[in-house]
Amino acid sequence: MSMRSETDSMGAIDVPADRYWGAQTQRSTINFPIGVARFRWQRPMVRALGVLKRAAAEANAELGELPADVARLIVAAADEVIAGKLDAHFPLVVFQTGSGTQSNMNANEVISNRAIELAGGKMGSKQPVHPNDHVNRGQSSNDTFPTAMHIAVVEEVHGKLLPAVRQLRDTLARKAESFAGVVKTGRTHLQDATPVTVGQEIGAWVAQIDFGLEAVQAALPGVLQLAIGGTAVGTGLNAHPEFGRRAAARIAALTGHAFVDAPNKFFALSAHDALVQTSAALRTLAGGLFKMANDVRWLASGPRCGIGEYTIPENEPGSSIMPGKVNPTQCEAMTMVCAQVFGNDATVAFAGSQGNFQLNVYKPVMVHNVLESIELLADACLAFDDHCALGLEPNLPRIEENLDKNLMLVTALNRHIGYDKAASIAKKAHKEGTTLKAAALALGYLTEDEYARWIVPIEMTGPSA
Amino acid sequence: MSMRSETDSMGAIDVPADRYWGAQTQRSTINFPIGVARFRWQRPMVRALGVLKRAAAEANAELGELPADVARLIVAAADEVIAGKLDAHFPLVVFQTGSGTQSNMNANEVISNRAIELAGGKMGSKQPVHPNDHVNRGQSSNDTFPTAMHIAVVEEVHGKLLPAVRQLRDTLARKAESFAGVVKTGRTHLQDATPVTVGQEIGAWVAQIDFGLEAVQAALPGVLQLAIGGTAVGTGLNAHPEFGRRAAARIAALTGHAFVDAPNKFFALSAHDALVQTSAALRTLAGGLFKMANDVRWLASGPRCGIGEYTIPENEPGSSIMPGKVNPTQCEAMTMVCAQVFGNDATVAFAGSQGNFQLNVYKPVMVHNVLESIELLADACLAFDDHCALGLEPNLPRIEENLDKNLMLVTALNRHIGYDKAASIAKKAHKEGTTLKAAALALGYLTEDEYARWIVPIEMTGPSA
Amino acid sequence: MSMRSETDSMGAIDVPADRYWGAQTQRSTINFPIGVARFRWQRPMVRALGVLKRAAAEANAELGELPADVARLIVAAADEVIAGKLDAHFPLVVFQTGSGTQSNMNANEVISNRAIELAGGKMGSKQPVHPNDHVNRGQSSNDTFPTAMHIAVVEEVHGKLLPAVRQLRDTLARKAESFAGVVKTGRTHLQDATPVTVGQEIGAWVAQIDFGLEAVQAALPGVLQLAIGGTAVGTGLNAHPEFGRRAAARIAALTGHAFVDAPNKFFALSAHDALVQTSAALRTLAGGLFKMANDVRWLASGPRCGIGEYTIPENEPGSSIMPGKVNPTQCEAMTMVCAQVFGNDATVAFAGSQGNFQLNVYKPVMVHNVLESIELLADACLAFDDHCALGLEPNLPRIEENLDKNLMLVTALNRHIGYDKAASIAKKAHKEGTTLKAAALALGYLTEDEYARWIVPIEMTGPSA
Amino acid sequence: MSMRSETDSMGAIDVPADRYWGAQTQRSTINFPIGVARFRWQRPMVRALGVLKRAAAEANAELGELPADVARLIVAAADEVIAGKLDAHFPLVVFQTGSGTQSNMNANEVISNRAIELAGGKMGSKQPVHPNDHVNRGQSSNDTFPTAMHIAVVEEVHGKLLPAVRQLRDTLARKAESFAGVVKTGRTHLQDATPVTVGQEIGAWVAQIDFGLEAVQAALPGVLQLAIGGTAVGTGLNAHPEFGRRAAARIAALTGHAFVDAPNKFFALSAHDALVQTSAALRTLAGGLFKMANDVRWLASGPRCGIGEYTIPENEPGSSIMPGKVNPTQCEAMTMVCAQVFGNDATVAFAGSQGNFQLNVYKPVMVHNVLESIELLADACLAFDDHCALGLEPNLPRIEENLDKNLMLVTALNRHIGYDKAASIAKKAHKEGTTLKAAALALGYLTEDEYARWIVPIEMTGPSA
Repeated sequence: MSMRSETDSMGAIDVPADRYWGAQTQRSTINFPIGVARFRWQRPMVRALGVLKRAAAEANAELGELPADVARLIVAAADEVIAGKLDAHFPLVVFQTGSGTQSNMNANEVISNRAIELAGGKMGSKQPVHPNDHVNRGQSSNDTFPTAMHIAVVEEVHGKLLPAVRQLRDTLARKAESFAGVVKTGRTHLQDATPVTVGQEIGAWVAQIDFGLEAVQAALPGVLQLAIGGTAVGTGLNAHPEFGRRAAARIAALTGHAFVDAPNKFFALSAHDALVQTSAALRTLAGGLFKMANDVRWLASGPRCGIGEYTIPENEPGSSIMPGKVNPTQCEAMTMVCAQVFGNDATVAFAGSQGNFQLNVYKPVMVHNVLESIELLADACLAFDDHCALGLEPNLPRIEENLDKNLMLVTALNRHIGYDKAASIAKKAHKEGTTLKAAALALGYLTEDEYARWIVPIEMTGPSA
Repeated sequence: MSMRSETDSMGAIDVPADRYWGAQTQRSTINFPIGVARFRWQRPMVRALGVLKRAAAEANAELGELPADVARLIVAAADEVIAGKLDAHFPLVVFQTGSGTQSNMNANEVISNRAIELAGGKMGSKQPVHPNDHVNRGQSSNDTFPTAMHIAVVEEVHGKLLPAVRQLRDTLARKAESFAGVVKTGRTHLQDATPVTVGQEIGAWVAQIDFGLEAVQAALPGVLQLAIGGTAVGTGLNAHPEFGRRAAARIAALTGHAFVDAPNKFFALSAHDALVQTSAALRTLAGGLFKMANDVRWLASGPRCGIGEYTIPENEPGSSIMPGKVNPTQCEAMTMVCAQVFGNDATVAFAGSQGNFQLNVYKPVMVHNVLESIELLADACLAFDDHCALGLEPNLPRIEENLDKNLMLVTALNRHIGYDKAASIAKKAHKEGTTLKAAALALGYLTEDEYARWIVPIEMTGPSA
Repeated sequence: MSMRSETDSMGAIDVPADRYWGAQTQRSTINFPIGVARFRWQRPMVRALGVLKRAAAEANAELGELPADVARLIVAAADEVIAGKLDAHFPLVVFQTGSGTQSNMNANEVISNRAIELAGGKMGSKQPVHPNDHVNRGQSSNDTFPTAMHIAVVEEVHGKLLPAVRQLRDTLARKAESFAGVVKTGRTHLQDATPVTVGQEIGAWVAQIDFGLEAVQAALPGVLQLAIGGTAVGTGLNAHPEFGRRAAARIAALTGHAFVDAPNKFFALSAHDALVQTSAALRTLAGGLFKMANDVRWLASGPRCGIGEYTIPENEPGSSIMPGKVNPTQCEAMTMVCAQVFGNDATVAFAGSQGNFQLNVYKPVMVHNVLESIELLADACLAFDDHCALGLEPNLPRIEENLDKNLMLVTALNRHIGYDKAASIAKKAHKEGTTLKAAALALGYLTEDEYARWIVPIEMTGPSA
Repeated sequence: MSMRSETDSMGAIDVPADRYWGAQTQRSTINFPIGVARFRWQRPMVRALGVLKRAAAEANAELGELPADVARLIVAAADEVIAGKLDAHFPLVVFQTGSGTQSNMNANEVISNRAIELAGGKMGSKQPVHPNDHVNRGQSSNDTFPTAMHIAVVEEVHGKLLPAVRQLRDTLARKAESFAGVVKTGRTHLQDATPVTVGQEIGAWVAQIDFGLEAVQAALPGVLQLAIGGTAVGTGLNAHPEFGRRAAARIAALTGHAFVDAPNKFFALSAHDALVQTSAALRTLAGGLFKMANDVRWLASGPRCGIGEYTIPENEPGSSIMPGKVNPTQCEAMTMVCAQVFGNDATVAFAGSQGNFQLNVYKPVMVHNVLESIELLADACLAFDDHCALGLEPNLPRIEENLDKNLMLVTALNRHIGYDKAASIAKKAHKEGTTLKAAALALGYLTEDEYARWIVPIEMTGPSA
């Protein structure tokens, strides 16, 4: 491999000649060979670092802290980072310095070298664009990295999570509407209960998912507050007093999200409670998706010895000899994702509690887990929507059969024949294993016509029904 | 013990003659002897059940569903439950039916018997006030118990948690203000960093606690939505269509909190995500208190071989021979409380995910843990405020000593003598173990007067300083 | 209230005249009013402190560190603590100093004052038995409290948990044996699968509970190692070099459990990983009980629209009008207990990770949660055994009905008529909603007699069947 | 891309011509596009599936269930899977069917096609080696996938985790030995306490890591029990009665680990408590590493305003201007890894509790998290060893300075001049901010020579010192 020498305050070190990164990134690859196959930063954080560095350069230029031509070069290189053209130049992993210092330097070095290249300079020369003095101007890892964390989370929530969850939610809402008139057995304590409609049953899932979506959105205002401008300890030392505000405004303009600089920079560096709250909201959302997916698989259980009131698509071979055995694989993938989100959230909350003094040094692991939860929930919702929800159907014969034998329907007779006679009908039906109708007619408490008029399950499902 | 016979649909059973409870409560004491010493329902839930039952009676009376005199008797008995006069008649524990059925019946039975007594009737006769037909009119455990859960949580958050946390928060805010001018060593990665003021350091705690307080308050709108009116499965079967709305309005009037009936009763019975979100917010708040308490004990560590920049009150004997050894016991109690809140939250989130179909049957364990977290955080904040925060003081000599030897101050010289000379001063001081000033003067880069003018730590703490 | 003056190194303070505790206990009641209604130490820890203090006095007497008469007085008073006669004199709560110092002093003070009383002395005089110099001789809170923690946990596991879980386990094992010959539908992915016997199904629960029991027992050797002898930092300063070994031997003799003093006292004070492991094992056990209880409620779901293959006892009224609706209340209590154990374990693991240097100061909250999990699991197993497992029965008609219609039985035909014909039978039955037998006969692939000989579900349940 | 047609029971589907996988694998890539960038199965599971398939073929051949030549072909192809030559042919992710069915089929399909290729046949023809009839002979996903899970975990624990942790542990043990004679200030409650040696301090970390290592090893016997032979529901239907035992013996021979087939196959399919216990043990180990890494960074805090008693290597630039500011980056990476392991464990325990009836369908997410925790802990230990532990040194001047001013040394004077005089020395020193020695001499209680003879910190560190 062809190598190039790069230097930092510890001296010179060889880096691959075809990579833009510099000495500090290279050292990090040596010092932190931890989970390399799975824990490299991905698109969202790399892009966020690019957005941040471009915004910082623009703000510094506005404030006279950077020469216009240097700023232009930085912006050009940062734009390539934003666009994803330089992802291969971000080799670092989550488990590094807890402030994300090396990833901040990775961005500084890559942008510096690419800017130098654009300017026709010599990579590693730090001229005309210095990774620290120019790209990191008025910044510290302690404020840039959490700023990038927030940018990445907001962009992923808006760009990936919300559309995916809403797509699934809307499919379910349409299903609820389509089957609003289908009456079925309700169940409490897993026991037969008075009827509900399919619309009500699925509508409860929709309401729960809506609650989760609102929880996630309610967590975002905190994430829109950026640490930028706080530099090393929150005081803003070495940054122009206007820098944080202007950089945040540039980030808002670049992303289309209403980012501002945090009112208390000391809090913004020493704790990441906005991410803890976001993670908790993702957990709440996951809890709702978990309940929905569990209901679906139980309602689709069978084909003959389960509940079997819903059918779901058969996406892959189940048993080759066993027709009708449709394993609820999308439900299983979804509930596994939710279990992962629960664990990720435990990591985030634990890490969030462990700050000391002016810095929380669990930044990388916190944002990693929040982003992973976002990605997994989004992916799982899309897969579930495509391969399960869209094909979810009530199994009408089974629903009718179950409803028909559900003894809880007897409660509709109370007002017509009184509680005691109604109860005796149910007792007879239960004891003899017959339908309510058979028992009622056998006892002579009502006629077949009265049964048909009085036992109308849909009327038991509410005033709106 | 003198006994009285009570009956339910399973037959007769003896209950203590001096207790108002009836057959179903008695059976529950036999069936669920689980954690009896620690898991009986306490004031908040008993009071909430009283509020609910009074509101239900009033709503039913308004709607013509209950005779006025029966309603009046129920209100009178419920008022005693609300006031705490009948707490000894609520013997049941958390670990019972997952819908809280027995506790709902406990309330029904106690109110019925006390109302009967007030009317001069015979306890256990169910006349003139029947526990089911009257006290539980238009209700089911499935909607009453979660309604009581929400009432209890809202009342405890407002009545206990918020005042306690705010009291501590305000003490800290006053401390931040009092010591706004005291400059001290900042610390990142536990390493000496550029200076901050005591006001900034403590102010970050205040900002973090404020964030937690806002998170808790942001969770409340969901808790203000009540399941009442949903009855057994969410359809409202057997309740007057107006009942939920009116009962919620009565609850709002009785408590002074803006309760409404939930727009989707199916969701309100089958999931308790508003409590999951509340629990998560309590966890966030606990995370902030944990960080604050940790900072306090580290900053007060010593007396000689630690950081020692803050002093805290000595509330109890430490070492009898060792003057100045003040164990940070309030910090320890607070951080243990936070650890408990973290675990309680794990229980709540787990339980919240486990609903099936029309009912989540983890209601009691969910509300128990949320209420416990509220109580512990409130108690710990008051104790911490009284016995630690109020007496928290900067140890000025130590702060000055540490600041004086903090090599990070050298960064203030950059603009006067340039980076290279500044760095050589720091290197010399570090190597020789001297102060920056000694090294600077020895190198002849500046005069004593210049040192005094250029190294002004307060100026390094921000534009506002 | 009549008061008495007690003193410590901070001076005099009034304590209730009818209580044996002294100044430090009194101060703790003032300083830590946190969760008072639910978090006072209960029998296991109070007893353990009594055991420890008796053992320490005996060991010190043997080693000539305490006069024989003083030791005798301490033993007499400690015996009353052990027997539970002085529980009312232990008013302190979990959330106090993280080393448990005040509870150690509570034991010292109560034993001192009671011993003084036995000797005819004046309470509070510290003569002839001094709380520190005599009762706490050669000890520090830092080694005594974790020693008491271990004693309490071992005694509760052996005295309460194991018998209770084994009782439930044995009931289930008997059920498995009783119904070893009953063949039923197996289920995977909640879908109908090839048959198993009731014995195999219940036997899997037994095997899982056995695994949990073994996990708990495997955690005990670590808990049998005691911190005693380490004093304040692990070095044993101020204790006789033989003290730890002898005190542990006395504790072993007093309790009948194989306690020894820990080989590394520094580890024994600074971390409580043996409790973390115990907590984890309790969680594993809880996971198994959770799965069992869930299976029970699903298998007993119905009565008509669920699986309904098992019946469970009706312990309390379900729906008054709905015969056969038996809510699985014991399952619900059990699964709520398991959810609590999961959360308790999260607290323990979190707290266990937070030690610093020579001391972990989360001792009280750790042992509290471990003991609570032990108690809840034990109570829940006994209740579940009495009120559910003993009455658990297979619902033979439903089992037979389900088995009969289970299309998975067709796999038994492969070897007789080949895969293709077998599959076509299943497909026909599925499509037409008939039984396999009807489809098979209609297709003419086999005779009724052959069907009876070839489709023998019990033969599909394994070589041992 | 060149494609080839493959078929399964759902029909034909195109797969990339250069991949060995078949129809079911291809469908899974379409149905489960969830977390594709990070959640593909890696070496350990792919290798384990290869080991399993080879062992199964060998066992079937021994039992006459497979023709010898077919078995030979399977073994040859499986060997390539084992060796890692076919990793590119395993494209599936964790979030799929909860039984791991698609990954089992992925192995079956790849081995079948590669075996066909070796035999000169036509890929996709299923001749002469059929993915189901031959490669999956006598197996079901329900027993093969958990078998592979166990193989992977045992191999990774032995091959990766234990060596890495032991390497770090041994480095620390050597450090403890090297510095056994260095006396330093002990600390409890973060407060100065009586002295310990560096050997004792570091030795406690070694003891704690040893405890964690033992916990992990104690969990392995359960993991050595394999589900193989249980087939779909645990009964072993369609497998030779000897198959499980023989396959396990072959797996033992191939891996060198003492695998056996599980005594209760129903438990082995329906729960994965052995992995839950393994995960818990990894959490315990992580808790110990967390405490150690925290101690290291606190003890190395400074350089001037912290504790500063240890020095650690400077691996990357900290502050360019600030000599001696060495950020404890390896500690930060380690503690972040531990936070991740804590969350992973929460996922595993949650997932482990969610089995139903004869199957737990959270298999993939469980093994994924256990393997990730193993990998991260191993990697972090090696990095920490190389870049921190090996260079860890006591900072002798600072240790001496701290020890010298530590007032707790006064306790050594008790036996010489009595408690009261000793206390008065400490009080004077504390009040006046002088050393004990200065105070002692000023008070005239002892001579300089006596001070030197009586205050010998090493003698306070224990009888062995």
